[in-house]
Amino acid sequence: MKDNQVNVGIIGLGTVGTGVARILLEQKDLLTTRTGLTFKLSGIAELNWDIDRNLDLTGVNCYRDANQLLDDASIDIIIETIGGYEPAYTFVAKALKNRKHVVTANKALIATKGRELFKLAQEYGVDLMFEASVGGGIPIIKGLREGLVANKIQSMYGILNGTSNYILTRMYQEEMEFGQALQEAKAKGFAEADPTLDVGGGDAAHKLTILASIAASGFVDFNKLSVEGITKITKLDIKFAKDFGYVIKLLAVYREQPEGLDLRVHPTLVPNSHLLAAVSNELNAVFVKGDFVGSTMFYGPGAGERPTASAIVSDIVDLSRDLLLKEDRHLCNRTFNPENEVKVVPIEEISNRYYLRFFTLDEPGILSRIAGVLGEFNISIASMVQLETHEQEHYVPIVLLTHQAREKDMNDALAKIGKYDFVKDDYLRLRLF
Amino acid sequence: MKDNQVNVGIIGLGTVGTGVARILLEQKDLLTTRTGLTFKLSGIAELNWDIDRNLDLTGVNCYRDANQLLDDASIDIIIETIGGYEPAYTFVAKALKNRKHVVTANKALIATKGRELFKLAQEYGVDLMFEASVGGGIPIIKGLREGLVANKIQSMYGILNGTSNYILTRMYQEEMEFGQALQEAKAKGFAEADPTLDVGGGDAAHKLTILASIAASGFVDFNKLSVEGITKITKLDIKFAKDFGYVIKLLAVYREQPEGLDLRVHPTLVPNSHLLAAVSNELNAVFVKGDFVGSTMFYGPGAGERPTASAIVSDIVDLSRDLLLKEDRHLCNRTFNPENEVKVVPIEEISNRYYLRFFTLDEPGILSRIAGVLGEFNISIASMVQLETHEQEHYVPIVLLTHQAREKDMNDALAKIGKYDFVKDDYLRLRLF
Repeated sequence: MKDNQVNVGIIGLGTVGTGVARILLEQKDLLTTRTGLTFKLSGIAELNWDIDRNLDLTGVNCYRDANQLLDDASIDIIIETIGGYEPAYTFVAKALKNRKHVVTANKALIATKGRELFKLAQEYGVDLMFEASVGGGIPIIKGLREGLVANKIQSMYGILNGTSNYILTRMYQEEMEFGQALQEAKAKGFAEADPTLDVGGGDAAHKLTILASIAASGFVDFNKLSVEGITKITKLDIKFAKDFGYVIKLLAVYREQPEGLDLRVHPTLVPNSHLLAAVSNELNAVFVKGDFVGSTMFYGPGAGERPTASAIVSDIVDLSRDLLLKEDRHLCNRTFNPENEVKVVPIEEISNRYYLRFFTLDEPGILSRIAGVLGEFNISIASMVQLETHEQEHYVPIVLLTHQAREKDMNDALAKIGKYDFVKDDYLRLRLF
Repeated sequence: MKDNQVNVGIIGLGTVGTGVARILLEQKDLLTTRTGLTFKLSGIAELNWDIDRNLDLTGVNCYRDANQLLDDASIDIIIETIGGYEPAYTFVAKALKNRKHVVTANKALIATKGRELFKLAQEYGVDLMFEASVGGGIPIIKGLREGLVANKIQSMYGILNGTSNYILTRMYQEEMEFGQALQEAKAKGFAEADPTLDVGGGDAAHKLTILASIAASGFVDFNKLSVEGITKITKLDIKFAKDFGYVIKLLAVYREQPEGLDLRVHPTLVPNSHLLAAVSNELNAVFVKGDFVGSTMFYGPGAGERPTASAIVSDIVDLSRDLLLKEDRHLCNRTFNPENEVKVVPIEEISNRYYLRFFTLDEPGILSRIAGVLGEFNISIASMVQLETHEQEHYVPIVLLTHQAREKDMNDALAKIGKYDFVKDDYLRLRLF
């Protein structure tokens, strides 16, 4: 940095990259007023220059080859917005080795390659920032890392995937089936052509991995998380949950346990009275409990050009402080410690309350046999609904809410119940908040 | 700072000061893990050393005279937690002049003396931090100043006073009158012996002044805010609002207008469906809309030893970065610009929707005369309820919701209606969200 000017380069001019360029151009004066620094959009690397993005790029170096941008010695900060693993990883690694600070929104990259990248950043004395990777425009990473720095994080519950939340909201409000709500989400641009990562829970798991790494001041192995999506949920389940006083949300769960961290992503019955139950449509929220602060919540848009760009630019501004530090200091990156692997407790050892839904033949004695198996595995029933009739011929739904039970016991009980001829295969087990 | 050790001094060992001391002692290792620095509680100034605060102060310099602490050259950061104007102002000013960074939770001080104090801080090249002054443990100031740094703030709606929110929640949930709910709040420790500043709106106005100064990158004259408390609200108003689909909340309002900022604190009818309606009891929340991020919300405990101390310690950690900066740099304090007074639009020029409640004699033609006066001032009625009987003999309540109308017109209309003999003096005008 020279003369208080910070030179920024962007790799990838898709939705998010365009948003970042737009802020750097449109909010130039605002940023200078607030920071005393000038943020200059110096260069952009992009393969497709044929789209009209409604940006005035006069004076900006435009490249097709990202290496040209990465080799420009005047660039202070590189923004990676191409997403995915490659060539994103290669570009980010090269930027760090060229001693440039890096900002990315790439949750998959940070969640699965974070350890290597943070080691590189440490080695080369630069920072890697990723506010936009979780919760889009919501400053949740800053909130955790800095705002709640004085707290041991006891628990977090996040609605981190906008696509799933939109689908579940529509299923709840309009009594739609999953498939119909997914189609609507696609039509509205809230779901991609291949929605697997969103509705399967993988995206939320990437984000949970990142939040957990910060909260625990270490790094979490993404593969140790338990992940379950929302594809098996029917409108009947939404309706039953509603009758019991719950809303079903895809929750990312972080709970400090004596043996390590309880980390999982799965559809969860959230009580109507909880603030998270009011987080609807494509919006995101993270409910965080710290040992000093108590319960807090961060809420807002989890995706989109403008919110994501807002988060990236906040990282750029933070990095500009690093540029002013005495030699060999970089304070932003003070969590996500690549040397400290955090222990994750296997879900089998965790206890939860459960929602169970079976379709069974409408014959006498069936309920008592199911209850018998649950009892055999020390699972006690809190409430139960059995309906007389249902559209699926011959089969009637039975829904149970259990008291606290161990996941392992529940797995064993379900394996046994599932073998009965009178129980249809597509039974469902959900967990309560 | 020497050898990565930051020396902290606390003035005032009341609730909040004790909380800060507790974090510095109990979370010492956690803070070092997260920052690479050691935060040492070096000294405390307090008049009353006779209380057992359950703190191990071995090795901490304990003073009765704050000046001794302020003159200790080894102290890097001073925490002021005594509250009020004096001697807080004198101590903070002296700390700044002694080139120590200062952290305070003192909203009254920042809101009314902020301009002088930030000038002093600039002059002496140090920072004055105040995260705990608004929203207790919620990192709202950091969120606004840093997380949303790329955004022009278009609007903010804050539930910033826990006492008032607790009282209104109890009035809503238990159909209590104001006086009874206030008594309960006092008994539970949510209201002070003299609750004027809380229920009168002054405390929320102090906090709004601070948030507005940050959002607008200038400073706001506290005296230009319109402030109205919750003392005139009856359980009947709560009930009527509920029937119309609203919850009454004491809201701090910030709206960017073409002529300047619309800044006010008053009880407001919030639609049931809005997330702010779900912020209950003593909790606080701020709903912020930025031009890039869209709508976000920050929620959590607005007061208390531990949440407030959590916010103060986050400021201490942030200031430790300043200690690492090259000479004559201090980046934390990059908003709240004492040179830039922000224009506030008088409430008379603002338009709102209104809730009006009158008690009138039960005679024919009265409603039409009230409606006539409103029409005369271009105020049109959206909906209306008149009840047949009511406990107050001879008088019946009439409640109206209006469409958008200018405050000035509403004042004139109410002045005229208030003069009618058939209208009791204690009519009420509230504003809609």
